[in-house]
Amino acid sequence: MKQFLSINDVENLENLIQDALEYKKKPLKDEHLAKGKTLGLIFMNSSLRTRMSTQKAAENLGFKVMTFNAGQDFWAWETEDGAVMNGTTVEHIKDAATVIGQYCDVVAIRCFADLKNKKSDTEEKILTLFQKYLNKPLISMEAATRHPLQSLADTITIKEQWKETKKPKVVLTWGPHIKPIPHAVANSFVEWMNAQDVDFVITHPEGLDLDPAFVGDTQVANNQEEALKDADFVYIKNWSSFNDYGKVAEGYDDWMLTEEKMKITNNGRPMHCLPVRRNVEVSDEVLDSEQSLIFEQSYNRLFAAQAVLKNIL
Amino acid sequence: MKQFLSINDVENLENLIQDALEYKKKPLKDEHLAKGKTLGLIFMNSSLRTRMSTQKAAENLGFKVMTFNAGQDFWAWETEDGAVMNGTTVEHIKDAATVIGQYCDVVAIRCFADLKNKKSDTEEKILTLFQKYLNKPLISMEAATRHPLQSLADTITIKEQWKETKKPKVVLTWGPHIKPIPHAVANSFVEWMNAQDVDFVITHPEGLDLDPAFVGDTQVANNQEEALKDADFVYIKNWSSFNDYGKVAEGYDDWMLTEEKMKITNNGRPMHCLPVRRNVEVSDEVLDSEQSLIFEQSYNRLFAAQAVLKNIL
Amino acid sequence: MKQFLSINDVENLENLIQDALEYKKKPLKDEHLAKGKTLGLIFMNSSLRTRMSTQKAAENLGFKVMTFNAGQDFWAWETEDGAVMNGTTVEHIKDAATVIGQYCDVVAIRCFADLKNKKSDTEEKILTLFQKYLNKPLISMEAATRHPLQSLADTITIKEQWKETKKPKVVLTWGPHIKPIPHAVANSFVEWMNAQDVDFVITHPEGLDLDPAFVGDTQVANNQEEALKDADFVYIKNWSSFNDYGKVAEGYDDWMLTEEKMKITNNGRPMHCLPVRRNVEVSDEVLDSEQSLIFEQSYNRLFAAQAVLKNIL
Repeated sequence: MKQFLSINDVENLENLIQDALEYKKKPLKDEHLAKGKTLGLIFMNSSLRTRMSTQKAAENLGFKVMTFNAGQDFWAWETEDGAVMNGTTVEHIKDAATVIGQYCDVVAIRCFADLKNKKSDTEEKILTLFQKYLNKPLISMEAATRHPLQSLADTITIKEQWKETKKPKVVLTWGPHIKPIPHAVANSFVEWMNAQDVDFVITHPEGLDLDPAFVGDTQVANNQEEALKDADFVYIKNWSSFNDYGKVAEGYDDWMLTEEKMKITNNGRPMHCLPVRRNVEVSDEVLDSEQSLIFEQSYNRLFAAQAVLKNIL
Repeated sequence: MKQFLSINDVENLENLIQDALEYKKKPLKDEHLAKGKTLGLIFMNSSLRTRMSTQKAAENLGFKVMTFNAGQDFWAWETEDGAVMNGTTVEHIKDAATVIGQYCDVVAIRCFADLKNKKSDTEEKILTLFQKYLNKPLISMEAATRHPLQSLADTITIKEQWKETKKPKVVLTWGPHIKPIPHAVANSFVEWMNAQDVDFVITHPEGLDLDPAFVGDTQVANNQEEALKDADFVYIKNWSSFNDYGKVAEGYDDWMLTEEKMKITNNGRPMHCLPVRRNVEVSDEVLDSEQSLIFEQSYNRLFAAQAVLKNIL
Repeated sequence: MKQFLSINDVENLENLIQDALEYKKKPLKDEHLAKGKTLGLIFMNSSLRTRMSTQKAAENLGFKVMTFNAGQDFWAWETEDGAVMNGTTVEHIKDAATVIGQYCDVVAIRCFADLKNKKSDTEEKILTLFQKYLNKPLISMEAATRHPLQSLADTITIKEQWKETKKPKVVLTWGPHIKPIPHAVANSFVEWMNAQDVDFVITHPEGLDLDPAFVGDTQVANNQEEALKDADFVYIKNWSSFNDYGKVAEGYDDWMLTEEKMKITNNGRPMHCLPVRRNVEVSDEVLDSEQSLIFEQSYNRLFAAQAVLKNIL
């Protein structure tokens, strides 16, 4: 694997999942694999789970880890080619990426959608430029349109839990939120579920469609209760409007995932990538139920990252 | 030792002090003890001494160290059970703590009093919730009401310096400050001194009593000069009002610890946990005198942390 | 070498350069040299290249690295001796430096000029006080008046590139910028070039002289085109006014380094320390030309830091 920006970079998904599950049993089995190597973590946005799980995973393999918190405000990168840099940007991303690549053996970056410029978000402008100039293997720790480390952890979690021979029914349901939230987790989940042998449905209020480039011919329903029927796994996630780009959808509080709704499912397992707005997106009862997989997912982040790092080496 | 949140968690104080003194002679004697283990440092408030001494102590034992700077503003944690999270909090502390515990073997947290909500500070709301959901050994790097790593270093410092057979007289004196300062260092010092065989007195202006739950039947004087008489150790520390919760006490500039006042003592040794507002809390002459123990205290922070980490393993 | 604050601390420059070039071939050849030792990195200003290259260099030698981001705003250090600290400063630099020295074996600090107080900048007030109280070897990662790690990397770069027996002509030319920029890189470059066997010229608009204490009897020209004639290396750098201290010089846009101007040179190699304001200081064509050495310079930062750290041990 030369990079890990989306599921398209994965050569053999089954092997990747097996690597992760082996690390879950023996996290230190390859503790010298990355001896003398340095992983650079570049954060343009804040991070808890991704920061800690990626660092820990890397150290389990013997990497040294260097972190750079860019922050949009205090180290603004120019992304326009040919720009006359007499404004607020301090360094061109092509210079920054080239230099970071000189100091690291592998680099991971987090660069969220800004939800203002649909075109540059959709094109993954920052990720694409960074990758172009880095000259080293790049891992996405969530970019504008995808969050593949999360989706790998989600996929592992579903694999681990599902013991039956028939396909599970997996539902991705939109949930309410008070802030504009990117599409990355939802888009990635769609891509990874479509690569699995599952019966997959997306449900969201009318008009809140995800980018059709990700949805393709995935089954979509605007009636949440109908979609939840017989679901084995229910992934709840907010996303802001894609059409009215970045707008918060108001008036859909009844889309919160509740115990009542979980009863419609086939004793379904609720999932969320965290952080979660409790009692806005999902009720406490659902998150804290025995069925809840939220902490299985976060724990699997460790081994997802470790398997990806191993395959990059 | 299962956790280190207060002196009550210490099983054998003499052994803990001996461990620290041995590390002071041979810091690397247990350099592989924590091989493959990760210590997470969670800072909800800024830190210099605690950050650096705890990291260095951990690395002396072979820990990997991961740091997460929460910062009240950019990663606000919800602490109310059942809250509808449609406000400014981004993640519930129970989710954050559970996840952090999944990625670390031992965790240390700094979570100051906010000095606005007396009840939640006094109940150690953040520390208690964090500990409840962490599922891993927790160390306090200063919480709302206590700073036990500081007090252990202070106790070691007094032990090292006192060579006589009679009990030393130790005075904790209030000093002026321009900002509202938490009670944690003072409360902890009271607890740890009351567990030592010392003659201990607290002195502060009338009305500036510490929380009676910590003071108990400790001797308290409102006349600083009288209290300082024959003192062998003088610990100076500001704290804001406990009764008029968090209020800065004005009009007590003459409580600053000066050379003149130190003359009343028995060639006493001035102590302060740092950072210190020079010439406000204590005069330069006192801090920079040969008698001053401020840098003995800060140096002992290293070995206090190392002994605590060893006993937690 | 006991410290590295300027070229004056270098005992044998040729050996230092040779050490760096050997590390460039074999970065891990001394990977246990600093076993059990800790390097503290103190940043009072933000940093990308310096942060990452110094950390990586230290880890190549077996150092543990601890980073403290001071930031002027949230951990303000008092620098006045005898100050009554009833204002915005939280800790005296002498207390901070002493404590940091207790926890680290070697310390590196970044403390830019504030460009407001010419006297304290020129005196290197912060660096000098920090060094005075540290009691450990100190490395400058750019201070108010010098950036010696950059200049060492620049010197190595020129050495590597210059294969002829005659002296190269090296020109330091002022370039436009929209913000007040310190003099440190330019001053240091002057010092290091004057210690080399090169034909060295500084060129800048009239009135924008550097501090005469650095310039000495170095050749200075106010006609950029004349200075660039036959140049083998062209170092472009902005600096704000030294006379009208910290003022941004306006109206000199035509001092931007362009392809046209490079044609005047002897197929000269453009150099810049980065970050660079593209198409303000230098045009894209020059920065991205085959002749450009900007990434040779940044890559050499690694080995410059590693050689300095080795010689300090």
